[in-house]
Amino acid sequence: MAKVKKTPRPKAETPKGFRDYFGAEVTQRTEMLRVIGEVYHRYGFDALETSAVETVDALGKFLPDVDRPNEGVFAWEEDSDWLALRYDMTAPLARVAAQYRNDLPAPYRRYTMGPVWRNEKPGPGRFRQFYQCDADTVGAPSVAADAEICAMLSDTLEAVGIDRGDYVVRVNNRKVLNGVMEVVGLAGDDKESERGIVLRAIDKLDRLGESGVRALLGDGREDDSGDFTKGAGLSETQADKVMGFMAALGADGAETVANLRGLVTGSEIGEAGVDELETIAALLAAQGYGPDRIVIDPSVVRGLGYYTGPVYEAELTFEIKDEKGRPRQFGSVAGGGRYDDLVKRFTGQAVPATGVSIGVDRLLAALTAKGRMTTQAQGPVVITVMDRERMADYQSMVAELRQAGIRAEVYLGNPKNFGNQMKYADKRNSPIAIIEGGDEHANGVIQIKDLILGAKIAENATLEEWKDRPSQIEVPRSALVAEVQKMLAGQG
Amino acid sequence: MAKVKKTPRPKAETPKGFRDYFGAEVTQRTEMLRVIGEVYHRYGFDALETSAVETVDALGKFLPDVDRPNEGVFAWEEDSDWLALRYDMTAPLARVAAQYRNDLPAPYRRYTMGPVWRNEKPGPGRFRQFYQCDADTVGAPSVAADAEICAMLSDTLEAVGIDRGDYVVRVNNRKVLNGVMEVVGLAGDDKESERGIVLRAIDKLDRLGESGVRALLGDGREDDSGDFTKGAGLSETQADKVMGFMAALGADGAETVANLRGLVTGSEIGEAGVDELETIAALLAAQGYGPDRIVIDPSVVRGLGYYTGPVYEAELTFEIKDEKGRPRQFGSVAGGGRYDDLVKRFTGQAVPATGVSIGVDRLLAALTAKGRMTTQAQGPVVITVMDRERMADYQSMVAELRQAGIRAEVYLGNPKNFGNQMKYADKRNSPIAIIEGGDEHANGVIQIKDLILGAKIAENATLEEWKDRPSQIEVPRSALVAEVQKMLAGQG
Repeated sequence: MAKVKKTPRPKAETPKGFRDYFGAEVTQRTEMLRVIGEVYHRYGFDALETSAVETVDALGKFLPDVDRPNEGVFAWEEDSDWLALRYDMTAPLARVAAQYRNDLPAPYRRYTMGPVWRNEKPGPGRFRQFYQCDADTVGAPSVAADAEICAMLSDTLEAVGIDRGDYVVRVNNRKVLNGVMEVVGLAGDDKESERGIVLRAIDKLDRLGESGVRALLGDGREDDSGDFTKGAGLSETQADKVMGFMAALGADGAETVANLRGLVTGSEIGEAGVDELETIAALLAAQGYGPDRIVIDPSVVRGLGYYTGPVYEAELTFEIKDEKGRPRQFGSVAGGGRYDDLVKRFTGQAVPATGVSIGVDRLLAALTAKGRMTTQAQGPVVITVMDRERMADYQSMVAELRQAGIRAEVYLGNPKNFGNQMKYADKRNSPIAIIEGGDEHANGVIQIKDLILGAKIAENATLEEWKDRPSQIEVPRSALVAEVQKMLAGQG
Repeated sequence: MAKVKKTPRPKAETPKGFRDYFGAEVTQRTEMLRVIGEVYHRYGFDALETSAVETVDALGKFLPDVDRPNEGVFAWEEDSDWLALRYDMTAPLARVAAQYRNDLPAPYRRYTMGPVWRNEKPGPGRFRQFYQCDADTVGAPSVAADAEICAMLSDTLEAVGIDRGDYVVRVNNRKVLNGVMEVVGLAGDDKESERGIVLRAIDKLDRLGESGVRALLGDGREDDSGDFTKGAGLSETQADKVMGFMAALGADGAETVANLRGLVTGSEIGEAGVDELETIAALLAAQGYGPDRIVIDPSVVRGLGYYTGPVYEAELTFEIKDEKGRPRQFGSVAGGGRYDDLVKRFTGQAVPATGVSIGVDRLLAALTAKGRMTTQAQGPVVITVMDRERMADYQSMVAELRQAGIRAEVYLGNPKNFGNQMKYADKRNSPIAIIEGGDEHANGVIQIKDLILGAKIAENATLEEWKDRPSQIEVPRSALVAEVQKMLAGQG
């Protein structure tokens, strides 16, 4: 006889770098997305939901390679095509804007929210699937579109519960930086490597300080380990210009703009960039968004390689404790800017676009850190089962509670051990348990047990203020709904 | 010089079998999911969101095969593992129930909503990504759990807008069918092929009629093309029993149960199944769910191979027109049942479970067919741009409207051609356009154009009832918000 091969049991494990979300984690995110969607909608943006799967060809950027087809994205071959999970919301928007260009309104304002996938090495707190919530305006060349998105970002942060003063939206312009590059002689096609060095140096200001950045702008820098990083080869005067760019933040927007204008004198693109920042500031002022919410700030250099005009970033300014208990600023939760070659890849025609992406998971983490999120949702009222032959009675109780809009359930595990039923109610964070044994049934009454009060009494048996409130009351069966409502209201 | 290879332009196309959702399609689904989630939550179910990606090993059913690894699922290899997109919500629940079995409450009631992916040949109206919205109770052996899900399904359908009388939840029990099989002598391990023939025959009653099914239960059936399908080889008397099962629906639940009891006499499992149906009917009656909402119906044979106890299905009973204009019943929008080997694959320990899956997209289609869904959402109030130098004024108008909660935007395309601005407002389904040219600005007034009324007048120029309502009014600039609110209210 043939030997039957036994299939080994599969491991019950989330794949590496992925995670599951339970209860309040899910409902709080859903609620946050709903609130964000409401603000986006009020600003005239329309919802779009593309499929999670795109052709690798349409996604661009990541080209299929026989040896490493999955670099950056999760991809698989189908017939002769490669398909992949989207890695952001912008690439699918580019595809949609090209595919439906004859049907969509122009300009096309759209928002979208959902998971994106990155085929990257997972790390602590870094997942390979996470939510993005984007809003973009396609086909609007005016910087009024950028100003609008900054205002919307400010409204959105306040709508989800970040207080004014606890965040700032910073605006910069890639053209200004290009102008600085031009002024210091790094505009040419042959200077790409030097421009890269300057960009990376600027990004390291926080970490290396002014002298470290100056070294990188000049001849180069030797780090503590003795490794040498080549510099951009700028003279002292040229380096002053670049350093001046980063230090251009003035006491108010007008001063900042004046500082920037001085730095880019003679560069057409640089001056255009300063003009745009000035226009954005004026448009925002007209809408009532002052520097307590949105500021012109030259230190914003995010993803500058990708953007072609205004760039913006929302930063939370309050302090939280890091994993070692040290205070630190929470940092960036959203960012975006203007990019122009969105549709061009598909149609050959340049279409201006600007948009923002909110990191929903980071924003949720911030609100949790501020104590604005409950970590556990309130559980259901639990109707305990004292006699399994009377399940119909318990079901009729639960139906009454649910019809009154009260979250409730009958215990559906093995009812033999009453202690297990109470442990279950505790695990569910239930506010109330209902008990109707044989005696109660005969007398037409039920017991209503206040589990919140019960827990408080258990914590502190001498608690004076609870003395007059028994944690369990006997009421007529007919008063079930009214008494539960009263107790829930009393629990706050 | 080396020839520069030109990259061909990618095609702007959704991958085959996938689609995009725009505007109201997205927001209506989001709203439906919110309402369903509220009902599930009230019933004590907790939210769960698993990652879209699972190991093929954990998904089970689809084993990776070197030649055709993608059969049924979208899968790819990572290091030596295979990963895949989930194809339903039950397999990930099985993994979660096993992985977190020491932490989850028992029983564990969870709901989940989101897309699933099927690697199938796409067809008209059949997509490879679609939404599922599931609720399951894991670890509750009592059929009270099944009854509860039927009641919840009924509440859910009414909550999303299906009127009572326009749907019915049908309940059956796989054990009863097993009992019938036993009674007709098809219980043995060696009769699997015959049982399969009987199941498939039952499923074809609608299409083949009684005589066709009888042929398949007996010696076999030759179809119109002359093809012969082998029968189950039942005698006339045995076939009577099977046919009787399908015709067992009585005038009320009690009669149906009595009919079924007669059919399974002598089969222990069959009698247990009838008892369970009787219990379910009693529990539902105690909660006030009569046969106008939930009925015991032996004709429900859905996925019987997979289920082990009660099965249930929600069907919409109103007629819609098919693509050829013929009336037909809308049919099933949700279904589920009890299955027992959920966690066993992982842990070796059997855990009873029961659950339902709502086909959200079908339910949306049904509500659209009933005229309960608007096909286009209302667009924003559009503030036209008469003078691009005065963008700040227009931005300040839009800010006022938005702060009053009114959906509004400034036209951000090229403002040169005013006709294009009105075409844009039309495409957006905008209710109102605001116009403030140089004269208006000098006089401190604005024009408010009623686009809904304008469209009605354009349709029917002699329309008496609109005579007194001009489609455009001039009001002071300071009355912008109040007058827009008034006009919106008048448009209903």
